[in-house]
Amino acid sequence: MNTTVAMNITKSEKSRISEIDFNNLAFGSVFTDHMFFCDYVDGAWQQPQIAPYGPISIDPSAKVFHYGQAVFEGMKAFKDDEGATWLFRPEENWERINKSSDRLAIPEFPKEYFFDGLKTLLHLDNEWIKSGDGNSLYIRPFVIATQSGVSASPSDRYRFMIICAPAQAYYSGEVSVLFAEKYSRAADGGVGFAKAAGNYASQFYPTNLAKEKGYQQIVWTDASTHEYLEEAGTMNVFFRVGNTLLTAPNNDRILDGITRKSIIQLAKDAGIDVQVRRVSVSEIVTAATSGELKEIFGAGTAAVVVPFKSFGYQEKDYDLPSIEDSYASKFKKALKDIQYNRASDPHGWRYEVK
Amino acid sequence: MNTTVAMNITKSEKSRISEIDFNNLAFGSVFTDHMFFCDYVDGAWQQPQIAPYGPISIDPSAKVFHYGQAVFEGMKAFKDDEGATWLFRPEENWERINKSSDRLAIPEFPKEYFFDGLKTLLHLDNEWIKSGDGNSLYIRPFVIATQSGVSASPSDRYRFMIICAPAQAYYSGEVSVLFAEKYSRAADGGVGFAKAAGNYASQFYPTNLAKEKGYQQIVWTDASTHEYLEEAGTMNVFFRVGNTLLTAPNNDRILDGITRKSIIQLAKDAGIDVQVRRVSVSEIVTAATSGELKEIFGAGTAAVVVPFKSFGYQEKDYDLPSIEDSYASKFKKALKDIQYNRASDPHGWRYEVK
Ligand SMILES: Cc1ncc(COP(=O)(O)O)c(C=O)c1O
Ligand SMILES: Cc1ncc(COP(=O)(O)O)c(C=O)c1O
Repeated sequence: MNTTVAMNITKSEKSRISEIDFNNLAFGSVFTDHMFFCDYVDGAWQQPQIAPYGPISIDPSAKVFHYGQAVFEGMKAFKDDEGATWLFRPEENWERINKSSDRLAIPEFPKEYFFDGLKTLLHLDNEWIKSGDGNSLYIRPFVIATQSGVSASPSDRYRFMIICAPAQAYYSGEVSVLFAEKYSRAADGGVGFAKAAGNYASQFYPTNLAKEKGYQQIVWTDASTHEYLEEAGTMNVFFRVGNTLLTAPNNDRILDGITRKSIIQLAKDAGIDVQVRRVSVSEIVTAATSGELKEIFGAGTAAVVVPFKSFGYQEKDYDLPSIEDSYASKFKKALKDIQYNRASDPHGWRYEVK
Repeated sequence: MNTTVAMNITKSEKSRISEIDFNNLAFGSVFTDHMFFCDYVDGAWQQPQIAPYGPISIDPSAKVFHYGQAVFEGMKAFKDDEGATWLFRPEENWERINKSSDRLAIPEFPKEYFFDGLKTLLHLDNEWIKSGDGNSLYIRPFVIATQSGVSASPSDRYRFMIICAPAQAYYSGEVSVLFAEKYSRAADGGVGFAKAAGNYASQFYPTNLAKEKGYQQIVWTDASTHEYLEEAGTMNVFFRVGNTLLTAPNNDRILDGITRKSIIQLAKDAGIDVQVRRVSVSEIVTAATSGELKEIFGAGTAAVVVPFKSFGYQEKDYDLPSIEDSYASKFKKALKDIQYNRASDPHGWRYEVK
């Protein structure tokens, strides 16, 4: 292993791995033997540490509890058939967590700490990464504000952590989505583009309402007019009208998804007409009615690509056709082939952990 | 003391109170000897507990860290010259924390638990409440999502807590505010009306930018047009034009402040023309230029009433006159006289803790 950052490592005495049923994993519920953490104190990130995974001790007045000063990332490690371990565009995650941190007034985390921490952790817990299609290790870097005190101002202490959860292929079942008409996820000039903790809890209640009506997820629209389609709770969204692929442009409300930008590139590589522009609810409803709307799918690290079965808007449901050679299945396969080191990697997206 | 809820109480062995310099308290940084907490498990709030104030142990995958599922309240206890302890409109805080919880998909907290917990805690830590003008005990009820697991869905475990910090009069110095032109605090259809943790961290970065320009706080405008003035970071805002008092109406972006609604009532009682309606930036700029704008002040539990010295908008600063018999000082005195049991209480806002 090629690391340079000094780290304080305490290994777990006995691995828990034999207790885990790797064929029955609920997403993000079982964690590996170790965790990585690094504290920001007196204006500097201190020496990083790795310790056995377990509870942390934190003051009840810590700012993360009161003011939601916290950001996170989501990434995956894959094992190929020769036993090598791969990440997918990990520099993007490092850059993005720092973009999120900037917006939340959290100090940026140094690149070497991020990568050396990640590599050392994946080295120690390598057995937890299973080969085989669909298997992966979900990796969750995050930062929380740890200063004690209930005044509403940025913390002067933080903890950066990485925890890891083995994951199987993500079968979400059939997904019907609801286009948002009243609730919103993010404001212009707000923090929607950041993976800020508070962006997620605010979606739970409207999503519960949608679930009661039989939908699995919401596709958010712009908060000002609800006329333009933006993204889902943890996925960006693509629309195929005829053979044209549409997706909303990045702005300060939408997460700049790594799966999204990879799919845009793969679509260009395949000569597909891909348009990154505002997508209005009305054009999608019109295309659904005329039969021109072929697919809608979500794209994100956890689920890779999720085709939607139907969407609801203004008390009406619109079914999507089930088509062969869908873009969704094409991109899902292409992404996974790169992630599992089964195909060539023309854009240099794979990153070997060694 | 008049309580009915069974509680598990562990008293601290030795009070820390003799170590505290009550004449030099930074807001919200020193906590009393005890804390109240109650866990939500298996669909029910369990038996409440009081224990010595101290760190809690929590899994690094707890949902509060990742998804910001957390809400809070802020209230104060006052001691009158006879040694009796008073709260100000505490039912409003209980109702509001549950409104916030609903929006964040957190289960509501029962009224008897809230009040019996609060009373028992204030009884145990009564010495920490100092009499004398400006002295108070700041009380922070809050709820955090404690379920382990990094899937973005509502937690099935929560902890409700109350912690308390002795406070002195809040001298903020002279406050210049900046009217928001680009950043925003809350979206239509979002969670701005809730005391949701994530609403606060998202203000830190824009507030830092404002501070670099010499302002202490931001007055937020509506996210869609930035044409209407809404509220400050932790205070509602009032404008006095001539002798008319203006404040924005409640909507889903603005916190329904208890100080705000008390001031509206006091203004009505005093025969002041108070208009609860949208207040445009342009009318305030016009009134400032013509000399009709007499005052702008913030209103909130922590600071009670804070007169603003000037405001900045589009790279220009507008000074506010310093006037005698300001509404700000009138309402501040009236509120404090009720809070400290020095004046009659026609609306029944005082609540004795006994
Ligand atoms: C709000 C949101 N949109 C989109 C995505 C997809 O981004 P990525 O492809 O980088 O995983 C995520 C998360 O992963 C997300 O949280
Ligand atoms: C965003 C916001 N607005 C206004 C207020 C004032 O409300 P109250 O008068 O109930 O304290 C607060 C907090 O206390 C707040 O957090």
